[in-house]
Amino acid sequence: MNRIETDSFGPIEVPAEALWGAQTERSRHFFAIGEQRMPLGLIHAMAEIKRAAAEVNRDLGLLDARKAEAIAAAAAQVAAGTWDSAFPLSVWQTGSGTQSHMNVNEVIARLCAEQYGVAVHPNDDVNRGQSSNDVFPSAMHIAAISQMQPLLAALTKLRSALEAKAQAWSATLKIGRTHLQDATPITLGQEFGGYAAQLALAEATLHHALPAVHQLAIGGTAVGTGLNTHPDFGTRVAATLAARFNAPLTVAENRFAALAGHEALVALHGGLRMLAVALTKIANDIRLMGSGPRAGLGELHLPENEPGSSIMPGKINPTQIEALTMVCAQVMGHDVAIGIAASQGHFELNVYKPLIAYDVLDSLRLLGDAMRSFAAHCVEGLLVNHVRTQALLDQSLMLVTALTPHIGYDRAAQMAKVAHQEGLSLREAALSVGGLSAAQFDAWVDARAMVGHSNSS
Amino acid sequence: MNRIETDSFGPIEVPAEALWGAQTERSRHFFAIGEQRMPLGLIHAMAEIKRAAAEVNRDLGLLDARKAEAIAAAAAQVAAGTWDSAFPLSVWQTGSGTQSHMNVNEVIARLCAEQYGVAVHPNDDVNRGQSSNDVFPSAMHIAAISQMQPLLAALTKLRSALEAKAQAWSATLKIGRTHLQDATPITLGQEFGGYAAQLALAEATLHHALPAVHQLAIGGTAVGTGLNTHPDFGTRVAATLAARFNAPLTVAENRFAALAGHEALVALHGGLRMLAVALTKIANDIRLMGSGPRAGLGELHLPENEPGSSIMPGKINPTQIEALTMVCAQVMGHDVAIGIAASQGHFELNVYKPLIAYDVLDSLRLLGDAMRSFAAHCVEGLLVNHVRTQALLDQSLMLVTALTPHIGYDRAAQMAKVAHQEGLSLREAALSVGGLSAAQFDAWVDARAMVGHSNSS
Amino acid sequence: MNRIETDSFGPIEVPAEALWGAQTERSRHFFAIGEQRMPLGLIHAMAEIKRAAAEVNRDLGLLDARKAEAIAAAAAQVAAGTWDSAFPLSVWQTGSGTQSHMNVNEVIARLCAEQYGVAVHPNDDVNRGQSSNDVFPSAMHIAAISQMQPLLAALTKLRSALEAKAQAWSATLKIGRTHLQDATPITLGQEFGGYAAQLALAEATLHHALPAVHQLAIGGTAVGTGLNTHPDFGTRVAATLAARFNAPLTVAENRFAALAGHEALVALHGGLRMLAVALTKIANDIRLMGSGPRAGLGELHLPENEPGSSIMPGKINPTQIEALTMVCAQVMGHDVAIGIAASQGHFELNVYKPLIAYDVLDSLRLLGDAMRSFAAHCVEGLLVNHVRTQALLDQSLMLVTALTPHIGYDRAAQMAKVAHQEGLSLREAALSVGGLSAAQFDAWVDARAMVGHSNSS
Amino acid sequence: MNRIETDSFGPIEVPAEALWGAQTERSRHFFAIGEQRMPLGLIHAMAEIKRAAAEVNRDLGLLDARKAEAIAAAAAQVAAGTWDSAFPLSVWQTGSGTQSHMNVNEVIARLCAEQYGVAVHPNDDVNRGQSSNDVFPSAMHIAAISQMQPLLAALTKLRSALEAKAQAWSATLKIGRTHLQDATPITLGQEFGGYAAQLALAEATLHHALPAVHQLAIGGTAVGTGLNTHPDFGTRVAATLAARFNAPLTVAENRFAALAGHEALVALHGGLRMLAVALTKIANDIRLMGSGPRAGLGELHLPENEPGSSIMPGKINPTQIEALTMVCAQVMGHDVAIGIAASQGHFELNVYKPLIAYDVLDSLRLLGDAMRSFAAHCVEGLLVNHVRTQALLDQSLMLVTALTPHIGYDRAAQMAKVAHQEGLSLREAALSVGGLSAAQFDAWVDARAMVGHSNSS
Repeated sequence: MNRIETDSFGPIEVPAEALWGAQTERSRHFFAIGEQRMPLGLIHAMAEIKRAAAEVNRDLGLLDARKAEAIAAAAAQVAAGTWDSAFPLSVWQTGSGTQSHMNVNEVIARLCAEQYGVAVHPNDDVNRGQSSNDVFPSAMHIAAISQMQPLLAALTKLRSALEAKAQAWSATLKIGRTHLQDATPITLGQEFGGYAAQLALAEATLHHALPAVHQLAIGGTAVGTGLNTHPDFGTRVAATLAARFNAPLTVAENRFAALAGHEALVALHGGLRMLAVALTKIANDIRLMGSGPRAGLGELHLPENEPGSSIMPGKINPTQIEALTMVCAQVMGHDVAIGIAASQGHFELNVYKPLIAYDVLDSLRLLGDAMRSFAAHCVEGLLVNHVRTQALLDQSLMLVTALTPHIGYDRAAQMAKVAHQEGLSLREAALSVGGLSAAQFDAWVDARAMVGHSNSS
Repeated sequence: MNRIETDSFGPIEVPAEALWGAQTERSRHFFAIGEQRMPLGLIHAMAEIKRAAAEVNRDLGLLDARKAEAIAAAAAQVAAGTWDSAFPLSVWQTGSGTQSHMNVNEVIARLCAEQYGVAVHPNDDVNRGQSSNDVFPSAMHIAAISQMQPLLAALTKLRSALEAKAQAWSATLKIGRTHLQDATPITLGQEFGGYAAQLALAEATLHHALPAVHQLAIGGTAVGTGLNTHPDFGTRVAATLAARFNAPLTVAENRFAALAGHEALVALHGGLRMLAVALTKIANDIRLMGSGPRAGLGELHLPENEPGSSIMPGKINPTQIEALTMVCAQVMGHDVAIGIAASQGHFELNVYKPLIAYDVLDSLRLLGDAMRSFAAHCVEGLLVNHVRTQALLDQSLMLVTALTPHIGYDRAAQMAKVAHQEGLSLREAALSVGGLSAAQFDAWVDARAMVGHSNSS
Repeated sequence: MNRIETDSFGPIEVPAEALWGAQTERSRHFFAIGEQRMPLGLIHAMAEIKRAAAEVNRDLGLLDARKAEAIAAAAAQVAAGTWDSAFPLSVWQTGSGTQSHMNVNEVIARLCAEQYGVAVHPNDDVNRGQSSNDVFPSAMHIAAISQMQPLLAALTKLRSALEAKAQAWSATLKIGRTHLQDATPITLGQEFGGYAAQLALAEATLHHALPAVHQLAIGGTAVGTGLNTHPDFGTRVAATLAARFNAPLTVAENRFAALAGHEALVALHGGLRMLAVALTKIANDIRLMGSGPRAGLGELHLPENEPGSSIMPGKINPTQIEALTMVCAQVMGHDVAIGIAASQGHFELNVYKPLIAYDVLDSLRLLGDAMRSFAAHCVEGLLVNHVRTQALLDQSLMLVTALTPHIGYDRAAQMAKVAHQEGLSLREAALSVGGLSAAQFDAWVDARAMVGHSNSS
Repeated sequence: MNRIETDSFGPIEVPAEALWGAQTERSRHFFAIGEQRMPLGLIHAMAEIKRAAAEVNRDLGLLDARKAEAIAAAAAQVAAGTWDSAFPLSVWQTGSGTQSHMNVNEVIARLCAEQYGVAVHPNDDVNRGQSSNDVFPSAMHIAAISQMQPLLAALTKLRSALEAKAQAWSATLKIGRTHLQDATPITLGQEFGGYAAQLALAEATLHHALPAVHQLAIGGTAVGTGLNTHPDFGTRVAATLAARFNAPLTVAENRFAALAGHEALVALHGGLRMLAVALTKIANDIRLMGSGPRAGLGELHLPENEPGSSIMPGKINPTQIEALTMVCAQVMGHDVAIGIAASQGHFELNVYKPLIAYDVLDSLRLLGDAMRSFAAHCVEGLLVNHVRTQALLDQSLMLVTALTPHIGYDRAAQMAKVAHQEGLSLREAALSVGGLSAAQFDAWVDARAMVGHSNSS
């Protein structure tokens, strides 16, 4: 059963039970593209803007109080997620997000009529003093900030888990590796401390990116000039939202840039990309240290969460690492899409907004979830194989490096070569090459002393 | 209400009504990452493989006929989409897809028991002679091939729409533009013919990529050697699937490469990326020719499908183009993610398979849908603004190029400059500079003659 | 004529006149790949480190004063660019940069002998207390910081040029465009002010990235533990370099992360990528406003620097924009290469260092040069075509937006449609549709008032 | 000392000894950007086009024979590389390559005067019937095809080296690894055969891309219509070039697409990207198998070409692999830059031509050189550490997989777990768990039989 709805294009049939109106219905028809729906985080953020806008318009005397209160009440329901099924549109629609924005306006208008008996116009009332061009990018920023909280919590959780291991293993000597080849000793704690430091830098970079995201386009309306809105509208709406979200939200310093460019989100996602780069390195190291059980490096035992293979019984795989590194690759892909999209604005508007919003929110969600999962189901359960770790250290030839201050690079190189070619221990080879005594060797080649005075252990 | 299921890890509670078993449940718990579910196209393809495998195992005498027929019947239901809600797992899981593969094995085993009263083991029977490592990549190829059909149909539809315009506008003269600056004349038909030619090249490239995708890893089992399967198993399963999908499916020439690399899909997606590149250019041109209505180029009228703005009444926007170009940017991002993922295999297995599958299938779906929408809702409805197009041609100075064979480059340049600086028509400027007569000018500067002998109009 | 040089691998022939030694020669032989040489900025930075290291080792009593002073003097010559031809190695060599690092050690050792008559060993003396693994990444940071200065100067120059135009054109009304379609009015100054604001955000992002780049790996030696160096060595060398470069250089908070990851440079290049995104948008706008001269938008006159075409006389093209946008695309490509490279470290070392160094330095150089060129040869010379700009504004229909607060969205939409379909002016259409008087129209539709109360003009 | 040259812009000072003219000099002044010069391969290809064009114009009676022959002779010198220093312009110039194209025209004109005493005009004579817009993209294709020959030779060389190892090691059993964890056995020959198969697919993909690159834009002149050239000109020039380059060069089927798009090169580079993906995987495997010597996998000995470390004596690193994988990352970055560039054409011309040319030629050169180096200095010299390889195989637990057809997945899993947890051999654990006899174990668990019936060994 359908009902008839009308917009400036004329009448159109809409499913009888649908809360949306004519423009949403047109978009459903014209944009049957892909499976991705406009993210609910963005819908909820637009609803919060509508709520704040209605209140501000009422306070400025620009909107009838009865209408304003109905709008605010209906918008609050949408923001709370009560009507999520009323937002069916595809991400792949108009590049300004106007159709999902009108979807919000239409649903709120209908709720006003159905629930409060107040007739409001989606454009003239719900959208009063606003445009898709300032509402949608403001909602993009708000949704990103909301999703940053779980991401940063997950990042802290993972960093803490790595730091706990760094503490626990601060005295666990192991062989260092450079070029994936045996190198001089290090402690496992130093390695995990390095991972935590990489994440700390990513965290700092993400925090640096936030101030620009706290700036909202609201008040700029169609092209940034603020046409058809009150001069104080944007500032008041931003203040209302700042209180609602407990975040230092303000109007953009330059609203023209805020409509036409998305550098703030490009920089934020650049931080996520950097995080993905660091996570890939960390995860690969743990994958390698956990490789085996018999024919790999075998320095770490990975937690055993599930059977690894449909054909090989007893197999355990680094599945959390695989999920995480896939997520990182996806984020690196999103970064390219966002960069292309953000570069392609024309004049007063960038019309790749839904893509940018979708990919930024997706990366935030994926990295947050994957880090949380990796911390809980992999890092926290890691155990050292001490026997194996010590054995690999004992066999190594690169402890010869400690001799170079005493006997010079060239003679030390000769000892390493002899040991390598003749299958000797380093001590055997050193004594065979000569130039030092057994006592000197034992005094100079002390793995524990070699990991010594670093500023970071 | 839960029931208890058991796998080689021990017992675990599973929702009572769920068709899946223990391993699926473990993955639900350990991989709560993101919103993307393993694509149903891949689930259906795995089910078709299970069906074919059961039949082949029966024929080879390796599986009890009653079990085999129950498995085949249950798998057919899964492949038909009857039980889609029984496949809840995230894309971001083990990199071999083992968990979704076991999900298929478990659901089929349970259907065998529930519907046919036959007890089968998910590993020993449903998975007999198979491994995730050959089943999952085989399913990736099959799913990609299935999704290629609507993509290629959409590509043909769009190319045909462009060719129809090329025909219709073969005599519509307009100004050419190079560097976005006025150049010598061209016909609108020549431009649209060029677009169709770009798509034809993309089509050819995609066809070149198919033969490698027709090769299936099946029969390689765990590491490519075919351990635990009959030597004829892979070949027979491929033949069965070839008949089912009406496609020249075969076993991979080299199964080691088919498990460990994904170059076939990298090349296929490279073709999709090239298509995205061409579509971006085409869409941007139409966006520019449709810009206006008063302050743009205004050579084309775009179809008016919906109101364009929530604040600016009467505004019409190139929304189909915006959806298409966003899709193209997303595909260019996916291409990077896929390239990184495919490069990161180790030894006998690439463990970024779910990402590669998801992104390839997503790009196929998005490009197919977006091209279909763009063809139907934009290209087919394009109209020429003949008055405007002719006016822009008439004003142009670059028709001066036709004079160079007669008067030389330097004097022709002088005429163009005089016209430009003094606001004259080219004819006025030419006569003012001198060196030719009015009759000569009229004979030599003939826009229609200038678009002449091309091999492509 | 060759001479014989020897390293721990044995003797090798080296060109008689070459300043380099055996290891450099081996690399020349084994890495004949591509045309890119190791950047001189990196060579000079390594030489400055050698100079500082020699002084610090002398002060710590670890190196004979005569040797130390010869090394410092020779290194100063290398740093000054006196011996650039002595550094012939390819970028595409060992991933630690060891071969170019040994090239520096070898050349300095030879200069010590040739010029100062002091015999020093490339490893035992020039490289005392150091490793490629801390020297090379320290040099990467120093070279990047050195190249940041011209980049930031060029960025400031361009931003200033845009701001000067924003000032000059603050009252120049023009049509706004969203979706590349006519929208409500704006001033040209507001547009250029938006561009400047985009660049200001990029500038801030780049400044945020610097503190991490000021941290040097020096003192970590082979794996970050500082084996074979004095505990104060790194700190003292960093302090010496800080004085030399007048920059707040310090030792890395975590040297393990500084050898194994390159997040600091990933973040810096992320800022360059964001700058490239903004520049692409700005350049494209100016390209569009300068399109024509007769069949484009024609709002701006671009400076005429050179003939544009080999065949079309009198053609002027936006060549500075083309160079700039090509550079931006290249930087976006470099960003991907750097991200992949930085993600691929293993354990104690990332071995994609030369690529990261080369691409970061190349992006800095390219963006700096291209912005400087674009500012001087394009932006500063831009002129407005006032007649054309005013005409496009006068014809526009989107000024109807100013009527919506008075007559509602739906009736305003009707007026725009009538004007569009019947070829009327907006005023004519409004009066024909009715509901307002001519006097009301004139009072309400005032382009100058529409660009009014923005916070950014 | 300067001389005065003049073009349609007026007089300009040019260095007295320079062969170039006014337009080249303007570009030197206006485009002081970066270090990359326009590739000589492109300059030489343009010169070959000039030579062919002069001959064809003469034969068509469109150019005085004396002029034509002087042009052809001068162009032949340029094509042979005699005057390479006369082409100083930056890659980062006008996006059509017009400035380097005029550089070629000017140098040829000057050589005609200086060497043959024939006065020719760079535009009217050397460029007769041509435009940058058809000459430059034709030269891009020719230069790419020329550079394909060494690339394909290097690819064949590397594939052959891998195949030789596959042969040599066809009976060398080793442990397989999936998820970087121990899996069922394989031969080293099967692994190397897989690598060769990956390269064979890349080779086929590259060959598929060539026919589109064989199509030349020549004859299209300014916008694709062939204005100002003879209808047979393009075809004749293509035929002349086909003979010169011994390649099936033809005129483009659609010249509009050939000027405005670069899909042919996008597809070619997509093939190079796919090759880079495969090479990365192959190189990483060899890096892992060569890791050690004592604390890594240690299955392969890498050739020892040079000392690996400035601080660690005796260290050998996988430097060829590092150079190769850096090159692959760079190619993956170039792929993104090329994709962006090719998508950004407007109407009749893509103006990112120099970037596309530079990056395509750079990737061809880098991959060719790096594969040649990797084959000669790494793959060919690889040796197996048989003792180590056998030991890793003997310890493995995953041979348990061979038992599942006999005892079922669940009991086999139990055996593997017991072995893993109690540090037993698989045989010991199997007998302890029970259900089979020692004789059965020995019959069923036979590594050699497990690598058996593959179609690919």
